[in-house]
Amino acid sequence: MSDDAVLYVCTTCRMEGDAPDGPRAGARLYDALRAASSREGLRIEPVECLSVCKRPCTVAVASGDRWTYVYGDLDPVTSARVILDGVGLYAGTPDGIVPWRERPQEFRKGVVARIPPFPPRAA
Amino acid sequence: MSDDAVLYVCTTCRMEGDAPDGPRAGARLYDALRAASSREGLRIEPVECLSVCKRPCTVAVASGDRWTYVYGDLDPVTSARVILDGVGLYAGTPDGIVPWRERPQEFRKGVVARIPPFPPRAA
Repeated sequence: MSDDAVLYVCTTCRMEGDAPDGPRAGARLYDALRAASSREGLRIEPVECLSVCKRPCTVAVASGDRWTYVYGDLDPVTSARVILDGVGLYAGTPDGIVPWRERPQEFRKGVVARIPPFPPRAA
Repeated sequence: MSDDAVLYVCTTCRMEGDAPDGPRAGARLYDALRAASSREGLRIEPVECLSVCKRPCTVAVASGDRWTYVYGDLDPVTSARVILDGVGLYAGTPDGIVPWRERPQEFRKGVVARIPPFPPRAA
């Protein structure tokens, strides 16, 4: 199960240009990710607010033995493929830490935070 | 064990005014937290970089069944007590979500991100 990962997508993220009566940017990104994903072992979960409201759109990727990463500044339309590719690289590592040069540009620029695996390994 | 929580402290955070040959602000915050903490079930862990480098000092709090929160803009000297009080409120909730009005001002202003409990509950 160590390859399993969860991609949390903030569906309440708004962006300029969102139609007043249409789905928000975050919800559109969620739909795009669901449509584009074919990865076994990746669960895509909608979340009401990741508290990164100033940097829409926002996602987080978590996995049992890996660091959790939070990314912002993601385009609701064009970034789905990039996000899924980046998550694929993440799932291919033992600890979630993809070498800097291999990370998608969107992840390098958009990183909001990272959190160590929980629970921490015994000292 | 559901009361157990881990407070991750970025010890590589730098701030203006750090002595060139002294410990960095993040390391000083870590020391202050260790000195001030008397809470059973709270583990304080030093971390090399939480990737919130523009908002020092930075901490994250995680717990098995609770949301993870990341906070920045924390003072290395004066915030230790506030952080520990805030973590106490967090540990007193079932899901980690402290009502907004009860959160310390430092947590309201300094929130960087929040991530749902992992693994997600079955749909």
